[in-house]
Amino acid sequence: MSDQATVARRAADTAARPAGGQPLIDFRTDPSRYRHWRLAFDGPVATLTMDVDESAGLVPGYELKLNSYDLGVDIELYDAVQRLRFEHPEVHAVVLTSGKEKIFCAGANIRMLAASPHPWKVNFCKFTNETRNGIEDASAASGQAWLAALNGTASGGGYELALACEHIMLVDDRSSAVSLPELPLLGVLPGTGGLTRVTDKRHVRRDLADYFATRAEGIGGRKAVSWRLVDEAVPRARWDETVAERAAGLAGRSGRPSAGPGIGLTPLDKTRTGGQIRYRHVTARLDRSRGVAEITVNGPTAPPDASALHEQGAAFWTLAMTRELDDLILDLRTNELELGTWVIRTAGDAGRVLAHDELLLRHAGDWLANEIIHYLKRTLKRLDVTSRSLIALAEPGSCFAGSLLELALAADRSFQLSGTAEDAALTVAAMNLGPLPMGNGLTRLQARFYGDQAGLAAVEQRAGEPLQAEEAEQLGLVTFAPDDIDWEEEVRIAIEERASFSPDALTGLEANYRFAGPETLETKIFGRLTAWQNWIFYRPNASGPDGALRRYGTGQRAGFDRKRV
Amino acid sequence: MSDQATVARRAADTAARPAGGQPLIDFRTDPSRYRHWRLAFDGPVATLTMDVDESAGLVPGYELKLNSYDLGVDIELYDAVQRLRFEHPEVHAVVLTSGKEKIFCAGANIRMLAASPHPWKVNFCKFTNETRNGIEDASAASGQAWLAALNGTASGGGYELALACEHIMLVDDRSSAVSLPELPLLGVLPGTGGLTRVTDKRHVRRDLADYFATRAEGIGGRKAVSWRLVDEAVPRARWDETVAERAAGLAGRSGRPSAGPGIGLTPLDKTRTGGQIRYRHVTARLDRSRGVAEITVNGPTAPPDASALHEQGAAFWTLAMTRELDDLILDLRTNELELGTWVIRTAGDAGRVLAHDELLLRHAGDWLANEIIHYLKRTLKRLDVTSRSLIALAEPGSCFAGSLLELALAADRSFQLSGTAEDAALTVAAMNLGPLPMGNGLTRLQARFYGDQAGLAAVEQRAGEPLQAEEAEQLGLVTFAPDDIDWEEEVRIAIEERASFSPDALTGLEANYRFAGPETLETKIFGRLTAWQNWIFYRPNASGPDGALRRYGTGQRAGFDRKRV
Repeated sequence: MSDQATVARRAADTAARPAGGQPLIDFRTDPSRYRHWRLAFDGPVATLTMDVDESAGLVPGYELKLNSYDLGVDIELYDAVQRLRFEHPEVHAVVLTSGKEKIFCAGANIRMLAASPHPWKVNFCKFTNETRNGIEDASAASGQAWLAALNGTASGGGYELALACEHIMLVDDRSSAVSLPELPLLGVLPGTGGLTRVTDKRHVRRDLADYFATRAEGIGGRKAVSWRLVDEAVPRARWDETVAERAAGLAGRSGRPSAGPGIGLTPLDKTRTGGQIRYRHVTARLDRSRGVAEITVNGPTAPPDASALHEQGAAFWTLAMTRELDDLILDLRTNELELGTWVIRTAGDAGRVLAHDELLLRHAGDWLANEIIHYLKRTLKRLDVTSRSLIALAEPGSCFAGSLLELALAADRSFQLSGTAEDAALTVAAMNLGPLPMGNGLTRLQARFYGDQAGLAAVEQRAGEPLQAEEAEQLGLVTFAPDDIDWEEEVRIAIEERASFSPDALTGLEANYRFAGPETLETKIFGRLTAWQNWIFYRPNASGPDGALRRYGTGQRAGFDRKRV
Repeated sequence: MSDQATVARRAADTAARPAGGQPLIDFRTDPSRYRHWRLAFDGPVATLTMDVDESAGLVPGYELKLNSYDLGVDIELYDAVQRLRFEHPEVHAVVLTSGKEKIFCAGANIRMLAASPHPWKVNFCKFTNETRNGIEDASAASGQAWLAALNGTASGGGYELALACEHIMLVDDRSSAVSLPELPLLGVLPGTGGLTRVTDKRHVRRDLADYFATRAEGIGGRKAVSWRLVDEAVPRARWDETVAERAAGLAGRSGRPSAGPGIGLTPLDKTRTGGQIRYRHVTARLDRSRGVAEITVNGPTAPPDASALHEQGAAFWTLAMTRELDDLILDLRTNELELGTWVIRTAGDAGRVLAHDELLLRHAGDWLANEIIHYLKRTLKRLDVTSRSLIALAEPGSCFAGSLLELALAADRSFQLSGTAEDAALTVAAMNLGPLPMGNGLTRLQARFYGDQAGLAAVEQRAGEPLQAEEAEQLGLVTFAPDDIDWEEEVRIAIEERASFSPDALTGLEANYRFAGPETLETKIFGRLTAWQNWIFYRPNASGPDGALRRYGTGQRAGFDRKRV
């Protein structure tokens, strides 16, 4: 980003702080501004080195010692993960390592956690989880394999970061270890997937996993290998060559192009005022009195040009829109906690949305088209795990078709105007039938019609047809289809009523209903594990004045209420 | 139970109250003592009528109006479910209905919930969930189908009770409805499986389910049928005949015997003092200073006699031991919250344990043998979801074989003494290879070796052989195998250390590690849903002075912190 753009953006941000007073968190960054990570490239292998600047915490009040991290460190990591996929098609393997002596990463900064309010902790863990899932997605969907090269101890969130990689190497030097010390030291759980990945991904036996999670000092060397906590323990003398060998091996399995160029993830064109966030294709009106964000996603303004996909790069509508939506979700989640309901509209030409979808699917063998589809998939998953009520409104001029129909299918409720001459149709298309699965492995249509094969088949048969409200309601694609006499009143009541309910109960309700049916490692992390962690974080045994999280480092033992619940 | 036995038991109970002061809850009852339910029999159809005595709450301070329930009501329901299976083999279908006008059941009593401490609410929901799972198990495993005959409104926990039945009929009278009003009225979730069963069992579409859970007044009539909330809506004029018809239809599908007799679930021989709970085969020493319950399960004292299974009935070792263990788990969970670690030992002859297992499996086509196996399965599942650390100790004279080996496999850690001349062997047998699955559908061995097919196969190949400590450790059947020099110290440290950790974090850790791998409706209810509910129950938006649960019925609106987390 140019200096000028940076200055302009910072000025805009300052003007746009929500009334509450916490500093506005910006998720946009780029490698030239990283404080905590270094990226280096050597043909098909990139090395991402964590070298956290102690003094550059996002919020005052703590030092990021021992490569511990806060949200700011994770925002840069997320940026690096994204850029490796879009800007570096030639990178087939990523080596994740540390720039510090003797320590890979000490996990989330404990003083930061102890000082943070509950919603901050929960949001922080959620974003961190999403970034780690993104690392796994890079291996699975893009042939960009991640290798954790633990050149020192990886504890807590540091080990959980390694768990997201395909292969874990630990230096065998009699002092380096992997550990999950949250339970013995802090009285909380490893908050970013550690427990689930240890058993469900790495297949560590549950009693050994239990023992491991009670040993603050962790486990290293041969025992860490035989318990499957890491894949190999390598003496320091053979470290560099072995890392290079493994990286080359992983890179050799990739189907990515052997050379670039990638496309540049150019700075987002974003303005933020007190009442509005505006990008090129996406806008959000922030209505603080009603507790509502009114989001509009605009369709493409022109038909797609297949021959220009790579040339357009970040300007290609699907990618541009997805990046904006991604940034908006993160912004609203983090900065606007009291906007509890997101009302989602679309505007534009459904045919052009579908044409963009088709172009991408037709070229799915092209690395860039593949990346765009998977990025859209990840962004929609982010919406699925967002703790806000989602209400979709299909009004005349809307374009809920294909990829944009997923926004309505992700919503907790949807309304479609019936009896209108203008077009408020929904269109099911190929993008709805497979390429954009939820975290539970189902498409949003499959989740919607879970256990109702006939209902699902009836909808799939109508793929490609614009469906007006009466039909869409009958097929079960929308919740309600009021006519223009009832529309305003019905929608108003639905939104107002939502704002009157307990925000906690809504969060729990939505987290359950959105994930009908099967569970995966991903949904277990966001559902089971996160819910337990929310509860534990909130209890006095962790966060009360005598709680373990608050007492950590004071030399005083935590005082526990011993009752088991 | 004879009056004399009742008096004796009550006296013992009074003497045995734990220091804390809450009244000791007793889970033992029988139909002659029911205050809230009536059982009637008509050939293959039993009718269980809920007719709650307002004035007979378990604890003072609330009235059980409108067939609302507390733990006492549920204890009787659990007893009825058990007796229907064991005492009434001739019952093929159970009609669950209400003895009140216009109301089936209003759910858990709200004043009771509002006045209860957090652990009480959580324990209450857990037991209620288990009873409902038991109803589903009766249909699935015993051919005893449950029919919910909702002759009036079923709201909240009342509707959740109906959801556990195989078929739900609702009277169609323009006022009766089913509802989940927890979110709009109380700011909490339906706490006993409602959300999960609505989508995953009944396949209600998620947006309709969302709308349904925000309508305090619920949904009745044809709409309830078309949304799949109930199976049929029947006018009052045709109610009795239709219920009879449906019950006969369900009964006709059963494979249970066409006539009795069943066996009597005779009163348990239990004594409880301040420091000990003692049954015939099971004992527990309550060590309050260490926060430990030392449980010993004794094996059979004689070989089994196949010809006398029915004659022995409740005295047959496997059934007697299971009933005692079941009662002990419930007693300790409810009455001894500060005994955070359960140390589990066995004592006796492994050969006799295996002989009892074999007899049951050989006669699995016999209704009683089948019932005993499934009851043991349910009791072990109860152990799996118990929020206590479980440590199994295999010492000389122990009999961790077959059914009793499951106790060690359910434990978070196990120790087996090595290098001893006396027998501390473990024996894998047929009972470990299928008949006693966990809630996630896996055997405890499969969960233990999740993702490690070779490890599982190696253990299965050794079925039938007594395995000494070194071998068992190598095979991964026990966590640690210290010799007699280290044993005492290692075990002592493991137990003491456990008591030093945050009880909340341990609960979360164990709830995650015990359920590696796949998820089912049952594990989703105990894992995802329960964890969310724990958190929501605990938050000020529900339980604070301005929370919805505390404000309910006062005429004042709840005051919410609007921040979404």
